[in-house]
Amino acid sequence: MDEIKNYIEENKDRFLDELFGLIRIPSISSESAHKDDMYKAAEYWKQALLKAGADKAEVFKTKGNPVTYGEKIIDPKLPTVLVYGHMDVMPVDPIDLWETKPFDPVIKDGKIWARGADDDKGQSFMHAKAFEFMVKKNLLPCNVKFMLEGEEEIGSPSLPAFCKEHKEMLKSDIILVSDTSMIAQDVPSITTGLRGLSYMEVEVTGPNADLHSGIFGGAVANPANILCKMIASLQDENNKITIPGFYDDVEILSPEERAEMAKAPFSLEKYKKDLDIKAVHGEEGYSTIERTGIRPSLDVNGIWSGYTGEGAKTVLPSKAYAKISMRLVPNQDNEKISKLFEDYFMSIAPDCVKVKVTALHGGQAYGTSTNTPAYIAASKAMEKVFGKKAVPTRSGGSIPIISEFERILGVKSILMGFGLSSDAIHSPNENYPLFNFYKGIETIPYFYKYYTGLLK
Amino acid sequence: MDEIKNYIEENKDRFLDELFGLIRIPSISSESAHKDDMYKAAEYWKQALLKAGADKAEVFKTKGNPVTYGEKIIDPKLPTVLVYGHMDVMPVDPIDLWETKPFDPVIKDGKIWARGADDDKGQSFMHAKAFEFMVKKNLLPCNVKFMLEGEEEIGSPSLPAFCKEHKEMLKSDIILVSDTSMIAQDVPSITTGLRGLSYMEVEVTGPNADLHSGIFGGAVANPANILCKMIASLQDENNKITIPGFYDDVEILSPEERAEMAKAPFSLEKYKKDLDIKAVHGEEGYSTIERTGIRPSLDVNGIWSGYTGEGAKTVLPSKAYAKISMRLVPNQDNEKISKLFEDYFMSIAPDCVKVKVTALHGGQAYGTSTNTPAYIAASKAMEKVFGKKAVPTRSGGSIPIISEFERILGVKSILMGFGLSSDAIHSPNENYPLFNFYKGIETIPYFYKYYTGLLK
Repeated sequence: MDEIKNYIEENKDRFLDELFGLIRIPSISSESAHKDDMYKAAEYWKQALLKAGADKAEVFKTKGNPVTYGEKIIDPKLPTVLVYGHMDVMPVDPIDLWETKPFDPVIKDGKIWARGADDDKGQSFMHAKAFEFMVKKNLLPCNVKFMLEGEEEIGSPSLPAFCKEHKEMLKSDIILVSDTSMIAQDVPSITTGLRGLSYMEVEVTGPNADLHSGIFGGAVANPANILCKMIASLQDENNKITIPGFYDDVEILSPEERAEMAKAPFSLEKYKKDLDIKAVHGEEGYSTIERTGIRPSLDVNGIWSGYTGEGAKTVLPSKAYAKISMRLVPNQDNEKISKLFEDYFMSIAPDCVKVKVTALHGGQAYGTSTNTPAYIAASKAMEKVFGKKAVPTRSGGSIPIISEFERILGVKSILMGFGLSSDAIHSPNENYPLFNFYKGIETIPYFYKYYTGLLK
Repeated sequence: MDEIKNYIEENKDRFLDELFGLIRIPSISSESAHKDDMYKAAEYWKQALLKAGADKAEVFKTKGNPVTYGEKIIDPKLPTVLVYGHMDVMPVDPIDLWETKPFDPVIKDGKIWARGADDDKGQSFMHAKAFEFMVKKNLLPCNVKFMLEGEEEIGSPSLPAFCKEHKEMLKSDIILVSDTSMIAQDVPSITTGLRGLSYMEVEVTGPNADLHSGIFGGAVANPANILCKMIASLQDENNKITIPGFYDDVEILSPEERAEMAKAPFSLEKYKKDLDIKAVHGEEGYSTIERTGIRPSLDVNGIWSGYTGEGAKTVLPSKAYAKISMRLVPNQDNEKISKLFEDYFMSIAPDCVKVKVTALHGGQAYGTSTNTPAYIAASKAMEKVFGKKAVPTRSGGSIPIISEFERILGVKSILMGFGLSSDAIHSPNENYPLFNFYKGIETIPYFYKYYTGLLK
């Protein structure tokens, strides 16, 4: 198994070439113009799996974007690892903030710069290359299945149905996922919790047309002003979310658990410096780590109304819009929260405007324990490669499908991610350090080895 | 003088053709891409004035957009009327809400539909045609000067310097302006007050890059949420503006004056129905007419941040922007108000964000009395043509340059406008009824007659 280091060294340029081919496909799932690119990416993955040693691989159509499935069954009696990843990426705007072209990957300062370099093309492709190594060197200790979807960034709307339909095909003992981060390059960590998500869009309509702000200003409700007031009232002066019932189901951690979390290495000064902020900002009574790990949040992801061009236009807009999402923690139900949001948002609308609320997507939070074979195997694998014990962490992000896997397939996931918080995923200048890419490939075969060993 | 009716009837199609030529030039002053169009419009006006009978006409360069000046001096001892108008127009977005092309004027339902149909190409062009009539029929009772500028919609930044430089050339007894509205087609009115304007742009910066709202949401200030809170706090629960000192200089009307204003015909039901709103919304304690006529206001003219495209993007934006303008009433100084806004806005910024405030443009409010020769002449002229006494009104809009004219040239303006509040100026589907266009042309020569008569 220790040959993996040499194998990476001998093949690293080819690994990058192959990954870059995938990255160059602009598979933005939220933009319908990229529909064809989703099929290109799915086909690319199919070929990559076959080339790496899969017995078979196939592109499945769904109601939405395609899913690529591949497998290598060496013995039905042996355990089966199902690798999950996604081939779709986030939009690239604001495009003018990118220093390189988002779909033209380049290596600079020891990192891959491109949309999807980390999330999740870079991370998922590590699994193809680790798999290739195990097949080539005859070191595969168990069965392997791959499932790559094309709708993760829009909430995986088609994957639950796909899982239900192909339950037998997807039968496995553990789902292995690399779509999360480690604390730092020298602090390996494993994600034991993910936040859920309720993503809403709201539309506030004032007058039936844009008006002259002089002739009408002061007498007619301005939907942008009203929307600001409504959004402002969603959080109180302690940054607690004011939606009635919002916190009812929030999992409350014991002081001991919070004390354990507080031991994770974290520098507030570095955090602030990296983000160039004078002060952090969040719910009173919780640390920064807790605010993203164990507490729900509410963010405006987008807001727009009126004139946003150059110079001045004295318009009183007819409509104002916002995209508002809430990150949820274990026990909060995303559909219930979406409904609470909608009810509350409608209730605070003054009668001088019309309000429409739409739930765009959502997902449940996820939590897992540290005493499962998969966690222990992942922890040992990371310790083997990074020389340090992995820290269990809770991510602030969401992978809504993870809780769906458990519900539909009855299989837990292990979130062994190799990203860094500085990878700028979802942002301009997304990047992924080569160090993490190669270390990830190096770690994965050990996971297979230890995991299969523990199940024997 | 009564020949004007016949003259309009005989020439009305030509009048429209000539106006349409002007409208077809997309002279949007706030968009630098239309720089050349400003010169085209200026040249068009020059030719129109010469054709109508001006002794001379000239396009003057300024630091910004050009000014077209023309004159006909029949006797230096006679009074001089200076006609002021503007050839620039507002931007056309949101373009998809237009039912016809904004710069391709069409006649439908007895109205001209186009950007600038009313504001101010349609209204200013009436003066060229009334002038043409008086020259052709040898009925001009006084000297006439025309000044058409190309920056009114962006606050006339270059015109004060132009006026200072050409004070002698612009010497006049009254400035005649048609850039305002009447109450209704059967209720002629003359504008005796205009609101001033302070137009600000604010930029709120949170983290130094767009972040993943899962990884960071709840721990890092979201500039869009913060901006909403800041904007919300600019007005209290009674819709009073909370900026300290904001109301200090506001002209307070006596109960008698307010009672007089309340006599103007106004149907709240029709107002609400026209705008398709359930309720009006404004400062407690004031009527709708008062809220736009004698009280200042604060409106978000534009707001933008984060992801505004199709679908969901879980971004915690780095920056949030808003354009916020305040309409001011007589005695409020726009520069003082801009400073008060800036100071207050900076003072309410939490230390987790950086805030930048820029004053984009501004202008002073304007008021005039109803016992001046110009008001009496305009009132008589409107009564002559519309068969009803004109009502003095205060417009909620701003023409910042009007108070500058008084300051620099020492000349008052008479605001004899023929627009309607339903003309959708500054909005999609701007329009101007042919009735108003022709009635305007008919009224103007009477103004000249009565005004010259009163000064004799």
